[in-house]
Amino acid sequence: MNSFGRRYRVSIFGESHGELVGIVVDGVPAGVALSADDLKEDLARRKAGAKGTTARKEADEPMIVSGVFGGRTTGAPLTVVFRNSDTRSGDYADLVAQPRPGHADFVAREKWHGWNDYRGGGHFSGRITLGIVAAGAIAKRVLEREGVQIEARITEIGGASDAAGMEAAVEQAIADQDSVGGVVECTADGVPVGWGEPFFDSVEAVLSHAMFSIPAVKGVEFGAGFEAARMRGSEHNDPIAAADGTTRTNHAGGINGGISNGNPIVFRVAVKPTASISRPQETFNFATGEVDRLVVRGRHDACIALRVPVIVEAMTAIVLCDFALLAAAEPAK
Amino acid sequence: MNSFGRRYRVSIFGESHGELVGIVVDGVPAGVALSADDLKEDLARRKAGAKGTTARKEADEPMIVSGVFGGRTTGAPLTVVFRNSDTRSGDYADLVAQPRPGHADFVAREKWHGWNDYRGGGHFSGRITLGIVAAGAIAKRVLEREGVQIEARITEIGGASDAAGMEAAVEQAIADQDSVGGVVECTADGVPVGWGEPFFDSVEAVLSHAMFSIPAVKGVEFGAGFEAARMRGSEHNDPIAAADGTTRTNHAGGINGGISNGNPIVFRVAVKPTASISRPQETFNFATGEVDRLVVRGRHDACIALRVPVIVEAMTAIVLCDFALLAAAEPAK
Amino acid sequence: MNSFGRRYRVSIFGESHGELVGIVVDGVPAGVALSADDLKEDLARRKAGAKGTTARKEADEPMIVSGVFGGRTTGAPLTVVFRNSDTRSGDYADLVAQPRPGHADFVAREKWHGWNDYRGGGHFSGRITLGIVAAGAIAKRVLEREGVQIEARITEIGGASDAAGMEAAVEQAIADQDSVGGVVECTADGVPVGWGEPFFDSVEAVLSHAMFSIPAVKGVEFGAGFEAARMRGSEHNDPIAAADGTTRTNHAGGINGGISNGNPIVFRVAVKPTASISRPQETFNFATGEVDRLVVRGRHDACIALRVPVIVEAMTAIVLCDFALLAAAEPAK
Amino acid sequence: MNSFGRRYRVSIFGESHGELVGIVVDGVPAGVALSADDLKEDLARRKAGAKGTTARKEADEPMIVSGVFGGRTTGAPLTVVFRNSDTRSGDYADLVAQPRPGHADFVAREKWHGWNDYRGGGHFSGRITLGIVAAGAIAKRVLEREGVQIEARITEIGGASDAAGMEAAVEQAIADQDSVGGVVECTADGVPVGWGEPFFDSVEAVLSHAMFSIPAVKGVEFGAGFEAARMRGSEHNDPIAAADGTTRTNHAGGINGGISNGNPIVFRVAVKPTASISRPQETFNFATGEVDRLVVRGRHDACIALRVPVIVEAMTAIVLCDFALLAAAEPAK
Repeated sequence: MNSFGRRYRVSIFGESHGELVGIVVDGVPAGVALSADDLKEDLARRKAGAKGTTARKEADEPMIVSGVFGGRTTGAPLTVVFRNSDTRSGDYADLVAQPRPGHADFVAREKWHGWNDYRGGGHFSGRITLGIVAAGAIAKRVLEREGVQIEARITEIGGASDAAGMEAAVEQAIADQDSVGGVVECTADGVPVGWGEPFFDSVEAVLSHAMFSIPAVKGVEFGAGFEAARMRGSEHNDPIAAADGTTRTNHAGGINGGISNGNPIVFRVAVKPTASISRPQETFNFATGEVDRLVVRGRHDACIALRVPVIVEAMTAIVLCDFALLAAAEPAK
Repeated sequence: MNSFGRRYRVSIFGESHGELVGIVVDGVPAGVALSADDLKEDLARRKAGAKGTTARKEADEPMIVSGVFGGRTTGAPLTVVFRNSDTRSGDYADLVAQPRPGHADFVAREKWHGWNDYRGGGHFSGRITLGIVAAGAIAKRVLEREGVQIEARITEIGGASDAAGMEAAVEQAIADQDSVGGVVECTADGVPVGWGEPFFDSVEAVLSHAMFSIPAVKGVEFGAGFEAARMRGSEHNDPIAAADGTTRTNHAGGINGGISNGNPIVFRVAVKPTASISRPQETFNFATGEVDRLVVRGRHDACIALRVPVIVEAMTAIVLCDFALLAAAEPAK
Repeated sequence: MNSFGRRYRVSIFGESHGELVGIVVDGVPAGVALSADDLKEDLARRKAGAKGTTARKEADEPMIVSGVFGGRTTGAPLTVVFRNSDTRSGDYADLVAQPRPGHADFVAREKWHGWNDYRGGGHFSGRITLGIVAAGAIAKRVLEREGVQIEARITEIGGASDAAGMEAAVEQAIADQDSVGGVVECTADGVPVGWGEPFFDSVEAVLSHAMFSIPAVKGVEFGAGFEAARMRGSEHNDPIAAADGTTRTNHAGGINGGISNGNPIVFRVAVKPTASISRPQETFNFATGEVDRLVVRGRHDACIALRVPVIVEAMTAIVLCDFALLAAAEPAK
Repeated sequence: MNSFGRRYRVSIFGESHGELVGIVVDGVPAGVALSADDLKEDLARRKAGAKGTTARKEADEPMIVSGVFGGRTTGAPLTVVFRNSDTRSGDYADLVAQPRPGHADFVAREKWHGWNDYRGGGHFSGRITLGIVAAGAIAKRVLEREGVQIEARITEIGGASDAAGMEAAVEQAIADQDSVGGVVECTADGVPVGWGEPFFDSVEAVLSHAMFSIPAVKGVEFGAGFEAARMRGSEHNDPIAAADGTTRTNHAGGINGGISNGNPIVFRVAVKPTASISRPQETFNFATGEVDRLVVRGRHDACIALRVPVIVEAMTAIVLCDFALLAAAEPAK
């Protein structure tokens, strides 16, 4: 439910306007040099601040409250927590009667019979990804030792794929009190041949599971992805060019039969536009029983995709770290 | 690894040219009327036969060897097995030295240190999906009681989305000793509000996990999917139109915040062109240590996407049945 | 690893002398009235204070930092943390060179290559059971609605099973700077017929798994237990006396074939004497490479069994709550 | 539910009078030399035949139908099946109305709403342990490479612990148309320091989980076990005698803090007397609504404990193999 992973396992908790959000990371190898400061670079990348991101200001100060001793991981569960402070709960009271379209307000209420913490989206808030970014930063440390490097970046906003077009798309969305979606591409270099399992724990299956756990993600494709559906086999097949498995092209995105093939793992995720927009919308009002005008107050991102790359990296690191630790368990003979 | 699901859990086994392929299904509710015949309609849809599918002829006769007594499921694990018969193992011996591009031959050998059963792709074979189709047919029976209906269909082949264009694409691929990819769309009607979990067990996360467990799938998108990345929030948001959560549009594909919202669940999967093609390819030969010409023998599908819809339905049924059984566990008070 | 349960799942974290110990509880049904105060009665029972228990004084003040809103559980993960304060880390430095016999000092160091937090036993400390008691108290609330009542009590200390004998055994152990073991018996009333699974998730299997997760537990037996091994079938079999499954005797401890049979679930756990004793012991000194005299400093329980009943209850509640939520998922038709 | 293990995972299926019973073993390392013959020694030990065991004669011929190729394991799921043949289903029809005391008849019917396969105990039958013995024999092969040896033996029958007494106890039970229980002790030599986890996946927790999954087991104790509850710390603590962790005594049964300490792992399981006895019993008759005389027909073991040692070994091997594969995943630095 709120935990994920087999050997490197994370458990998330918290709400947007609760006291703490955080993560418990089980399975971190002992002896990894680590301090709260090591998490800050990635947390800063997740943070709001740039044009197109929310005005909510949070310190996002990570506190490691277990699992580190004398500057090293101990092998015991590692817990990172963050304090919520800049909360304006009053902003959300109206949404109980009139759930925001495109948001989890309605389903949360139905699923939990009206007992959900509705303030700021409660447990559905993007703030929960703080813990994920922290766990990802730790996983990256473990993966460094294996020679794995992960990098995600925005490749498209509002249909534009050049910098000027992307910037214009965000600015126009802000001007229109609207929001806009985007695409994030992620590459993992240095993954050896043999991670993943056929069928249910294929690299694609587990990575996509993690990606679709990120709020606002609505599509995931590996290598040529949907374009592969329009290709011929003779065009899509990646000819092997060397004994280490290096292929001439990488339409497979580094994965065959669900198993890493030694080439870079490449995939893209589609991020929908932020559901919360200031622009008035027509939607059902449960208090009046009629479709009604809704103006969403609160502070929101005009383009949530801008904050997603570091979360995609974190989820990728969590998944690959799990595969790395499991792979170590496969004896060579 | 080779099992999937929490309350409705499947474990698959078998190889293309082994003795049996099959599936163990744990968690089937007791008392469901079921015989081997009930599985045959879906198995027939998966079967080769149409133009563009392999010439390998298998009876695909399901044998239920546990879990059914007196025509009803018993509550104990239900096992379905299939005998392999039309196997021509000699066809594959060459592939040990020269792994097929786009196929799992190379990674299987590396992952399992050369001990993998390489005949017909071994455990990576599409034949393993026989069990999945069987487990899906059983899950559909359980879901019927909940009023859930699942339907998947080909919407695109080789870039064409009309019947004539799709047929032409397949015929041209056959004529060229090549293969071609396609897109399958799946709809699940009747899913109530509230299935799925925020984050790690979101409906999207678990469904995509299952979809990417199907060989040849390289992309999955829900609702507007990748198109959502090019939309504005005001356009993408689905206005709620009634107290039951019905929305005017369904860009979200029936899922908000990872939870089903009562509207039809809609998603598409991209299927790559079959890796095995008769057309000569250049790829690495481990015997000679050089890039070399490869002609793949054996019998293959020119368009594997044609056989995928029933597998997508089966995987969807397996996932939704799991959610249905878990949802029953959420007390209303 | 540090998490347990399928539908009611707990994840523990913390070290004896770290900043926080705590637990994340996933799967708590929404709408259960709950405050931190509701946890205090059970926490007080776990607390030191009585004769025979450690002199370490901790506030053990539970802080619910997620999952509760407006005095009710929300359905999202519920997290309870406790601050460590009365820590005297200096007491433990010597134990790195000379691990205490009967304790985890040696194995922790070996398992985690010397990076373990050795202060006060680190993650192996009994303090981690604080979270378990909290999660158990919450589970009891859920079980109350099902009519299930759990009660554990000391039945034996140092071989004595009467109150005076038990007290004398503890006093003598203290006088001798030694420690003493005991037996705890637990009864769960009101469990309906049908919880548990044949084989791997039998009620006995899952309960014993939880019991042996409690530090110092070395034996678990259900119903007649080891005595059953000395009985005849005609004597051990519990004759069914009524249509609801009530049996005349309860040698089975309320479980047949791994499934609850409607009678009280009864089991006993053996608790070994506290490993840490002030009395000098001979054991290996890794600094000198020789067997050497060890005097364990620090504050310890002369009879840890005295504090175990509430932990046994908590673990039982966690297990039964999981079964209850899973059982709700078994449709009657 | 019917599967167990994390890296070496087994899934069982079958019924006493169904077509096949079997097991799917996922996670078997590739390259282990294995044939069906290698399973026969352990299967023979499980088999009926000795005095005090059932007259049902089954070939128990193992068929490996997946996961082995060219005499070696392939890395893919390994499946072993057994055909049921000597079934006399007529023997059991009466038990629907009058469930046997001490048996799963009543709970199976209630749990599965009357749809359970009641013939021969259905899925609750000891025949399901055939697969477990097979999976154990495979696990032993993997453990051999790690230098781990497992041995279980009967230490007590009907209270007697010498050979003559045990034999007399069985003979007397047979003469009385009754049954008798026993105790099995198991030792695992060669387990290195560091397997297992603190708390939920302690060696004791996981081993006991497996042991209580064996039908008829009602107690499990490690090392001094229940006797430890009567000991002083100064007596129970095992002094470390050498740098490799060897202790002078082994009251802990080779486990401290849930982690293996390098000494032999030693534990005992209590096996209750067989529930099915020919001697008349009084128990509830659901057809008449009254307590009534029951004479159990069918062929049964007078002392099921006699057949348990090899099953205890198998379960131990399954658990330790899982730990071994997981431990390999813990990088040394």
